[in-house]
Amino acid sequence: MKPKLARPLAALKRLLPGEITLAASVLRQYAGDKWFAAHPPEAVARPRSTKSVATILRFANRHAIPVTARGAGHGYVGGCVPLHGGIVLSLERMNRILEINAGDFVVVTQPGVITATLQGDVEQQGLFYPPDPASRKESFIGGNIVTNAGGPRCLKYGVTRDYVLGLEVVLADGTIVRLGGRTHKNKTGFDLHRLFVGSEGLLGVVTEATLKLLPRPPYRANLAIGFSTMRAAVRSLHAILRAGFLPAALELADAFTLAAAYKRTRSERLRGCRAHLIVELDGQRDSVRGEIRTLQRIVRAQQPLFVEVGLGDQQCEAVWKIRREFSYSLRDTGLTKLNQDIVVPRSRLEDLFAFAARLQKKHHLQFACFGHAGDGNIHTNIMVDFTQPGAKRRSDAALDELFRQVVAWGGTITGEHGIGIAKKRWWPLAVPQTARELHRTVKRALDPRGILNPGKFV
Amino acid sequence: MKPKLARPLAALKRLLPGEITLAASVLRQYAGDKWFAAHPPEAVARPRSTKSVATILRFANRHAIPVTARGAGHGYVGGCVPLHGGIVLSLERMNRILEINAGDFVVVTQPGVITATLQGDVEQQGLFYPPDPASRKESFIGGNIVTNAGGPRCLKYGVTRDYVLGLEVVLADGTIVRLGGRTHKNKTGFDLHRLFVGSEGLLGVVTEATLKLLPRPPYRANLAIGFSTMRAAVRSLHAILRAGFLPAALELADAFTLAAAYKRTRSERLRGCRAHLIVELDGQRDSVRGEIRTLQRIVRAQQPLFVEVGLGDQQCEAVWKIRREFSYSLRDTGLTKLNQDIVVPRSRLEDLFAFAARLQKKHHLQFACFGHAGDGNIHTNIMVDFTQPGAKRRSDAALDELFRQVVAWGGTITGEHGIGIAKKRWWPLAVPQTARELHRTVKRALDPRGILNPGKFV
Repeated sequence: MKPKLARPLAALKRLLPGEITLAASVLRQYAGDKWFAAHPPEAVARPRSTKSVATILRFANRHAIPVTARGAGHGYVGGCVPLHGGIVLSLERMNRILEINAGDFVVVTQPGVITATLQGDVEQQGLFYPPDPASRKESFIGGNIVTNAGGPRCLKYGVTRDYVLGLEVVLADGTIVRLGGRTHKNKTGFDLHRLFVGSEGLLGVVTEATLKLLPRPPYRANLAIGFSTMRAAVRSLHAILRAGFLPAALELADAFTLAAAYKRTRSERLRGCRAHLIVELDGQRDSVRGEIRTLQRIVRAQQPLFVEVGLGDQQCEAVWKIRREFSYSLRDTGLTKLNQDIVVPRSRLEDLFAFAARLQKKHHLQFACFGHAGDGNIHTNIMVDFTQPGAKRRSDAALDELFRQVVAWGGTITGEHGIGIAKKRWWPLAVPQTARELHRTVKRALDPRGILNPGKFV
Repeated sequence: MKPKLARPLAALKRLLPGEITLAASVLRQYAGDKWFAAHPPEAVARPRSTKSVATILRFANRHAIPVTARGAGHGYVGGCVPLHGGIVLSLERMNRILEINAGDFVVVTQPGVITATLQGDVEQQGLFYPPDPASRKESFIGGNIVTNAGGPRCLKYGVTRDYVLGLEVVLADGTIVRLGGRTHKNKTGFDLHRLFVGSEGLLGVVTEATLKLLPRPPYRANLAIGFSTMRAAVRSLHAILRAGFLPAALELADAFTLAAAYKRTRSERLRGCRAHLIVELDGQRDSVRGEIRTLQRIVRAQQPLFVEVGLGDQQCEAVWKIRREFSYSLRDTGLTKLNQDIVVPRSRLEDLFAFAARLQKKHHLQFACFGHAGDGNIHTNIMVDFTQPGAKRRSDAALDELFRQVVAWGGTITGEHGIGIAKKRWWPLAVPQTARELHRTVKRALDPRGILNPGKFV
């Protein structure tokens, strides 16, 4: 521990009995997330209440001690790594759903609730919280909020931000502020609560959220379609949208991903399959069943290798199970997956796959691309064997070229994961100087001493 | 003109030939909006380019001259009234749609385009821009953005904010900043562009916007339903949502509105009708037609007086034409309509109508309530005869009580129109002190000299 911190942290520990830990074995557990970077904090705070969070921040602000808030630690960009040490403020103990209101279509929750738990609880009351990040069985709703989590269903339903009606936030100086409300429409002042959504812990700590819910769609159905070319898959996607459909999900996977999936599953279907599209619809039963038939007609024009129909929850889940296998099969390759989440304007999907193919050749690397093609958000994973000479240099160069091209197309370097540490290097490439300066202006206004998650992109 | 302004404004006029007017006859035309307050500016700027906007703001900031940006002047709360004089910056000449991209599903536009024009143009390409404020045939898309405009379709589709992907904004000091982008997902830094959405001209001037488009739903249909009680109408509304429907629109009108509409239209249908509900669906033709039949079954359980079915664009428009007559018929009463746009949590709809009835009695005033009941956003119009003694005092008292009750229910005092001048008095009631202070912090950071739209709620 930095000697100058020993005394104030001991004082904080006395101030909040049972909520502050200084034990090295615990500190190590709070050093990182799912990305590879890690740095231990000097203290871990596990407050039980908003009041405790306020006490911690007021104290830290006075002593200029860094505070890095943390959900379940399931981020992919090192966002909650306490780069400058100090206090990791874990929200894990603030884990209660405070209210589910089927009349108002809202849920009020503390940040430490697991997203899938919240979704399950509201669904039991005929309600629906759509955002569905892949990590939803492990990640906290609070983490979803400060990273503005996405997922397949966001094509139709929008991202986490679109469901945040109100927030209780503790500011850097310990002030507790309640923003927004519980109504589905609100034009009272600036949209300040949404400024904290996706702010990656740099502007305040979310201690309570009021989220909008929708009526639960009574039925769902999907198609899983194999193609012999990526072009045919992308054309099907465009044809679906042109026919006036906005599916709940439109997910695409490339040849590398499918080859790995074949090795794992030995599914004969995936053999020879060079592109794989999942289209899911939800809504009223008869409507969905009729529309799935229309979609079959649309995609058959591109001569797919196969079209599998999933009707109802159980059959749909079976299709998504295969989709999840894609991730596991990439792990089976033994290569390190550099998980990117770029977004291209929708018309650039084919260009992206072609560009990735060129990069593979040039840098002798494998690319595995799959993801939320409907909104242009493709997980472009560079698969690296770091035991090979020059692997680091080659993957760095490929990433550089990929991000440069994506930005040149009007795309973005991150659609779901955020900047964190992992993409800090490309922050100046992605955001013009005046916009970066505006980030600093807002950061300085809300956190003048710079104690919140220091060392990150702003 | 304030004498100290004469010299700098003459200098600005020379700097931007043909873009600055000091003529009193012109100034008068830029003094107000659709609300009753008005105050003439000392100059009207009608810039043709972002560069000119930057020049104006840089100049005004140096000389501490107030600048109030203005769209089409169709606001309902005096938001663009230049309370402190100075320069009115009208965006009327920046009126070009720069790009409609059917592949990327975006439109790039200048702020001075009329919203209905933009909607018509994108629809011709099979695309869809959903937000539909009542003023859309007159208001500018730029005004819609800085007021975060809503409308009936926002129940299903969300408000203007949800469609703003990227903005070019000129800050108070004249800095031009490009925020966000053109991808449908973006997690690159803070969501700063959306901070300007709904900011009522207090934080910057929007000079270009990139908006998300959806596939145009190929079909629509609606039901217009008359009830003998408001309770039956509200119960129908809840039953529709409980059945898993999220209609494009769910619009409700009360007995006073219907009586006025009967007087105007002599439609026998409206005679004796105490509540009127419009439900609209859009999507694929067969699905919509099937679902409209289901909805008829649902609402018939509440024993409506009549159910009219509108199938396709033309029949649907006929129903909306009647809905628009509601507004005109209120004007026919000769009373002054104090147009409010409160929002209550959805479960409070019946309570709201009952409370409005009590207020009417108590204060000897008429209330006409209609609007976007699906999201709890009811235009609660107080109809006042200002020639009657004590009318002003009684209507003020009724508004006070209404807003107090709405806030006590967890509702909001404005769901669409914003605060402006009209609701400034209730700003401290609606927003806690710490949240108001955070508004001031953000305002000071972005506009340190306080030149942007001074005298308003922050």
